[in-house]
Amino acid sequence: MITVDEALSHVLRCARRNAAVRVDLSQAAGRVLAADVQSDVDSPPYDKAMVDGYAVWSQDLADGHAQLAILEEVTAGDVPAHGLSSGQATRIMTGAPLPAGADAVVMIERTAVVATADNPLGLVIIDDAPPRAGQNVMPRATVIRRGETILCQGTRIGPVEIGLLAEIGASQVDVFAPPRVAVLATGDELVPASQMPGAGQIRNSNGPMLLAAVARAGGIPLDLGIGRDDRRQLTELVRRGLESEILILSGGVSAGVLDLVPEVLAEAGVQQVFHKVRLKPGKPLWFGVLPADPVDKLVFGLPGNPVSSLVCCELFVRPAIAKMCGRSDVGARCETALLAADFQHRGDRPTYHPGRLQAAENGTIVEPLRWLGSADLRGLAAANALIRFAAGDRRHAAGATVDVVRFD
Amino acid sequence: MITVDEALSHVLRCARRNAAVRVDLSQAAGRVLAADVQSDVDSPPYDKAMVDGYAVWSQDLADGHAQLAILEEVTAGDVPAHGLSSGQATRIMTGAPLPAGADAVVMIERTAVVATADNPLGLVIIDDAPPRAGQNVMPRATVIRRGETILCQGTRIGPVEIGLLAEIGASQVDVFAPPRVAVLATGDELVPASQMPGAGQIRNSNGPMLLAAVARAGGIPLDLGIGRDDRRQLTELVRRGLESEILILSGGVSAGVLDLVPEVLAEAGVQQVFHKVRLKPGKPLWFGVLPADPVDKLVFGLPGNPVSSLVCCELFVRPAIAKMCGRSDVGARCETALLAADFQHRGDRPTYHPGRLQAAENGTIVEPLRWLGSADLRGLAAANALIRFAAGDRRHAAGATVDVVRFD
Repeated sequence: MITVDEALSHVLRCARRNAAVRVDLSQAAGRVLAADVQSDVDSPPYDKAMVDGYAVWSQDLADGHAQLAILEEVTAGDVPAHGLSSGQATRIMTGAPLPAGADAVVMIERTAVVATADNPLGLVIIDDAPPRAGQNVMPRATVIRRGETILCQGTRIGPVEIGLLAEIGASQVDVFAPPRVAVLATGDELVPASQMPGAGQIRNSNGPMLLAAVARAGGIPLDLGIGRDDRRQLTELVRRGLESEILILSGGVSAGVLDLVPEVLAEAGVQQVFHKVRLKPGKPLWFGVLPADPVDKLVFGLPGNPVSSLVCCELFVRPAIAKMCGRSDVGARCETALLAADFQHRGDRPTYHPGRLQAAENGTIVEPLRWLGSADLRGLAAANALIRFAAGDRRHAAGATVDVVRFD
Repeated sequence: MITVDEALSHVLRCARRNAAVRVDLSQAAGRVLAADVQSDVDSPPYDKAMVDGYAVWSQDLADGHAQLAILEEVTAGDVPAHGLSSGQATRIMTGAPLPAGADAVVMIERTAVVATADNPLGLVIIDDAPPRAGQNVMPRATVIRRGETILCQGTRIGPVEIGLLAEIGASQVDVFAPPRVAVLATGDELVPASQMPGAGQIRNSNGPMLLAAVARAGGIPLDLGIGRDDRRQLTELVRRGLESEILILSGGVSAGVLDLVPEVLAEAGVQQVFHKVRLKPGKPLWFGVLPADPVDKLVFGLPGNPVSSLVCCELFVRPAIAKMCGRSDVGARCETALLAADFQHRGDRPTYHPGRLQAAENGTIVEPLRWLGSADLRGLAAANALIRFAAGDRRHAAGATVDVVRFD
């Protein structure tokens, strides 16, 4: 049986970055840039006042004092009407462009205005330290130069990048299309959440859970509902699911007599890459590929037990979605934490146990949660991470460093 | 001038949990439960086989060996047709209900089947350690008992909670409605991202950025576009914005001559709570409240500089959105990290400086990024956190513990 790391390598080898699509900037949050983006402007676009005050020629204030004739008033959004000569000053607001001839701004707090007969705006009296050229001025193109690459292919777009892209004129951007991910829960015993289960039935919890996990991971979820253990119906649902870049099935991959899923997939042309992983919970995981353009379709057969299903989704499906979305930080989510309490591990497979991560004085600690096994979704509800315990019966002492996989 | 902590206290005092709404489970991810949820079923709903194998009466296997007549085959979704008597066994799949009379399951690997003339299903030969009663069986209601409260008001709904809610029959749930958050960028110098700025103009980067930040924080963003420094137009846009639970304005709150915003807000009935915070960048922050039902409307006047605007959004708007969404972990995002490099801080206000957090061997480290001040959105693009440096000129040495505010 292959290890978790081997299984993940197979998955990531088969997952390719999806095709690029052009989207409006308002739709780009969370996506990854598929091309470098250059600026079509300088930023700031002009020599810019950094404070409210008066634009001056610094040499007029060799000793810090002067009385200067006020030429005009310029606010952000205005363009100065007049160049400035020696003996003159322009009232200027933060963010406004400096007039030609000015090379410094004196803060408003260092100035006073007096009326004068020959100038309707009056004189400004300045009493300050001698300004240096460039004082309170941000020169044109300090932050961004026109034509320069500002954001690179592979950058994940968050609010700051949205603002930056707006600033440089990228009102539409090329991003990697997120994969569509179809989710099909299989099993004769399943009924929808809205229905009261009869004898021998349980509600379909995996479907809604996996759809939410797919959306959280950045995929576009598609609900295929419940598939019965019926070859014809499964075949049709699998065909529909393979229109998406990823098809997730839950249930139908353990050793039960009704496990039609692998056969139906083989008939659809899906080639098995691996079946079973040395992992608890989640051993029965099945993974296969259907060759296709522009990217191969990935098929995950997740175990039917809800916790096994979620663990496999976090460990294998989430990195596949991330890679298809163009993210580069895929699979590098190794993190460690200090065990908050003693924990007795039993079992011959590496175990991913629900845990609660918290920031603490001495670093991050993780508390192993009470958990009744792979049918106990309730035990997972308080968890924000999985703690990895190596195979073998062993007592792990409080304070020991353990590997964790964070959910968010 | 009030401190950041005082300002945040004011904001959180004014922000109330929004009204509850009933949503389909498929729309509930990311929301917070507005009421406790009880289960309408036991889980498991019956004594359940935990492995594939044979359901037996443990006393038939006092020494671990037996030949038992196979009664029937029961899979998940089936109901046993027959109760089991001494000398009989039922072939059973993982997840299927135990027949009456059985109290243990023997794993398939410990069994062999032989044909027999008088029973079409044959005999099962078992060779195992003596089973204890309850072996490989999960008793009914072990995980969830009908009528029990399974998830409490205030629980944030993630994929696991979605699965759990589906399992217990909550196909619709009451959640706190996320606040609608209207965003209005103000300033005569602003043009949309799609337009090439003329002389004295810059593109509106704050609007798209804040809309994305609102969505990331869990609010429902509403774009009011660009408001010019024109009283009549601003009055109409503010009226529309106040239909949302939160109105964010950016620009128009510093000391410039055209700063109409506070006046327009006062005329709309918005009461100022504070103006200016001891903070860099972000000092000009304005905050006010309009009394309303079911919750007061909150109005944030953010500075026009993009970085100041984002910092104020992260420090003050995000916690307000989180509280209105019903989240209880609001404002408790104090986290520390080790400084990755020496840093010289200058300034008489506490500074929130862009930083990059990374997990390291000895805990979390944070690198202060190169940053040209509040107009330098580019310097913020690589950041995933803000580092808080106290007021005063001081050299902070690499390895020092600093406070950080994480973005995600």
